[in-house]
Amino acid sequence: MRILVLGGDGYLGWPVALHLSGRGHEVGVVDNFARRQYDFEMGVDSLVPITHLQHRVRVWEEVSGLRVATYVGDLTDAPFVHRTIKEFHPDAVVHFAEQRSAPYSMIDQNHAVYTQVNNVVGTLNLLYAIADVDPSIHLVKLGTMGEYGTPNIDIEEGFIEITHRGRTDLLPYPKQPGSFYHLSKVHDSHNIMFACRIWGLRSTDLNQGIVYGQETPETVLHPDLATRFDYDGVFGTVLNRFCVQAVIGHPLTVYGKGGQTRGMLDIRDTLACVELACNNAPEPGEYRVFNQFTESFSVQQLAEMVVDAYPGNAEVVHLEDPRVEKEEHYYRAAHTKLLDLGLVPHLLSTRTLSALLSVVDRHRDRVDLTAIQPTVKWRSTASALPTSGGVLETEPSDA
Amino acid sequence: MRILVLGGDGYLGWPVALHLSGRGHEVGVVDNFARRQYDFEMGVDSLVPITHLQHRVRVWEEVSGLRVATYVGDLTDAPFVHRTIKEFHPDAVVHFAEQRSAPYSMIDQNHAVYTQVNNVVGTLNLLYAIADVDPSIHLVKLGTMGEYGTPNIDIEEGFIEITHRGRTDLLPYPKQPGSFYHLSKVHDSHNIMFACRIWGLRSTDLNQGIVYGQETPETVLHPDLATRFDYDGVFGTVLNRFCVQAVIGHPLTVYGKGGQTRGMLDIRDTLACVELACNNAPEPGEYRVFNQFTESFSVQQLAEMVVDAYPGNAEVVHLEDPRVEKEEHYYRAAHTKLLDLGLVPHLLSTRTLSALLSVVDRHRDRVDLTAIQPTVKWRSTASALPTSGGVLETEPSDA
Repeated sequence: MRILVLGGDGYLGWPVALHLSGRGHEVGVVDNFARRQYDFEMGVDSLVPITHLQHRVRVWEEVSGLRVATYVGDLTDAPFVHRTIKEFHPDAVVHFAEQRSAPYSMIDQNHAVYTQVNNVVGTLNLLYAIADVDPSIHLVKLGTMGEYGTPNIDIEEGFIEITHRGRTDLLPYPKQPGSFYHLSKVHDSHNIMFACRIWGLRSTDLNQGIVYGQETPETVLHPDLATRFDYDGVFGTVLNRFCVQAVIGHPLTVYGKGGQTRGMLDIRDTLACVELACNNAPEPGEYRVFNQFTESFSVQQLAEMVVDAYPGNAEVVHLEDPRVEKEEHYYRAAHTKLLDLGLVPHLLSTRTLSALLSVVDRHRDRVDLTAIQPTVKWRSTASALPTSGGVLETEPSDA
Repeated sequence: MRILVLGGDGYLGWPVALHLSGRGHEVGVVDNFARRQYDFEMGVDSLVPITHLQHRVRVWEEVSGLRVATYVGDLTDAPFVHRTIKEFHPDAVVHFAEQRSAPYSMIDQNHAVYTQVNNVVGTLNLLYAIADVDPSIHLVKLGTMGEYGTPNIDIEEGFIEITHRGRTDLLPYPKQPGSFYHLSKVHDSHNIMFACRIWGLRSTDLNQGIVYGQETPETVLHPDLATRFDYDGVFGTVLNRFCVQAVIGHPLTVYGKGGQTRGMLDIRDTLACVELACNNAPEPGEYRVFNQFTESFSVQQLAEMVVDAYPGNAEVVHLEDPRVEKEEHYYRAAHTKLLDLGLVPHLLSTRTLSALLSVVDRHRDRVDLTAIQPTVKWRSTASALPTSGGVLETEPSDA
């Protein structure tokens, strides 16, 4: 199968591309290196050093004998998208190429507008290119479990049967996203569903949970094949941050009460889920949603698991929650469709945590403590970042 | 009350501004004249001639002794929005300033992207400006009944109580919009709901039905105060088209079976609804939705009503439906919240239709028959407009 991975230079796009290549697919990657640019903007780095895309594609060829095609360009550039889809002519497009940080989207007005325009226009351009070039191309789109928010009823996979005043219909599951980034994914979902309806496109929307882990069977084949490990306050995820804090002897910082519960999964399961989606395409015109996570944890539970797994001493502190979210809530979400297709999950174990802690330990000299603090506050319309406090265009405000 | 009407030069924005001014409010209007620009692009005109905004504001002052402030600029220009909200400092902002034609958004990729960026970014800029300048400013946003689509259950006003596996929650009503334009309004609704939650803004989302009528108590005071009357295939609405077709002796063109049922209202009820929303602001942090229509009709019913009301002979023909929509479906939508606030509807009567037919008759020499045909097809990614067939950037395709 020919598979084009958009955002193939990123944390997940890169290991997904290697995995699909290693499994015998013809793989191309597309990237505009926006993710590396955000590092410059924020003054932070991946804890694990990563090499240039062009270099690591060469290393992959040396190690595996397999070629991965690269396309450098931006999805908001409509002619580039059209040309790339036409030239590579994939069977499936795996779309990771979006700004994917909630705090980044909440920095200020410019970042909110950038996130929504970048994500929504990129996906619209992709939908048009697929419809024009070949409507049978399967769009595998990365959504997020955060699209649902935290309703007081069970979360289903994309759609819910509602009986109301004696009548019944299967309708899109109501969305209550919690940042301008999460909102951009909800906008995408609605646009994609519509494109499937009017043009007969086929798409799988993977509403992914929070991914942890840094090593995959392919990336460990050579140090230059490593993928990112982000722990900073803007792009880092919570389990990564806890591991870094434990290793450097800093208290683990739980935002608010820590009852915030989210679906999570191992990076190796992301690889498997994406391949399962590609190998089992929906019918023409079908828009389907898979909830892509394997277990749910509260932030407090995660902190306690890291404390238990860390061989030294580690403690937990609570900070004021910079987000506007429920700190204690009901959370139960269906996630059976990928299991039905054959997913065998890697559950979060002490062994997984130890592997993650040892990645951090190997790179502990690269930890930047100033990067960890939460700096972006949801209730403000503009937040002063530690690295850019003096250059904000608008005055910070607590409006 | 100080009220700023965004899109105050348009079909509804202008009569709403006059109505609010006449009712004793301090009114300002904002417009970038995009609507007049679309006329140039499409090669069509309002059936009723309209004068320049600056001129009709002067005429209104002569007729009524009341001043309306004007601001010329674009909502996608963030500093302009911030400056205007700060300078006028309204109690309420009535937001009509969006690209509002479904067929226009479906012409091709450029028009789809334009519509979503224009509408979503304009509203985001407005939300940030209100949050920064004064979060107590009430945002009265024009949405559309088309956000809901045509579910097989009753449509409620914005939210629906769902009981699922033994638990209950009040959740946003699921949305199934039918064009990239309608999708942009759904995106707006989600963004506004979120802004109310995180910044404590207050907003009323008026999910309006299809408006008919051209004369209001204020616009009839002087011919130069007239508002638009659109009947063309891109910006015209169905009842206007039927009236024009009846008057010029052309068969009334029903798309498909004509069972498509939509909520509708008289233009005079739009004025009353907007004022009711302004006079009854929600609490800080509250996002509420009013379904703003008074009656539901199928397209076939409307055609038959026009045939009955027209004094001469008129017949109905069925064309292939250029849209992707259900041509026969269940439709029942709640619309009690505005009635509860005191709305007394003008229902669609023979008298209303006769008034509309007489507006058309007065301007029958201005009818452009070539403008009436539907030219934009939902199943194509690019449609050749009669006036721009040779200049499309992409090849028409039936992908």
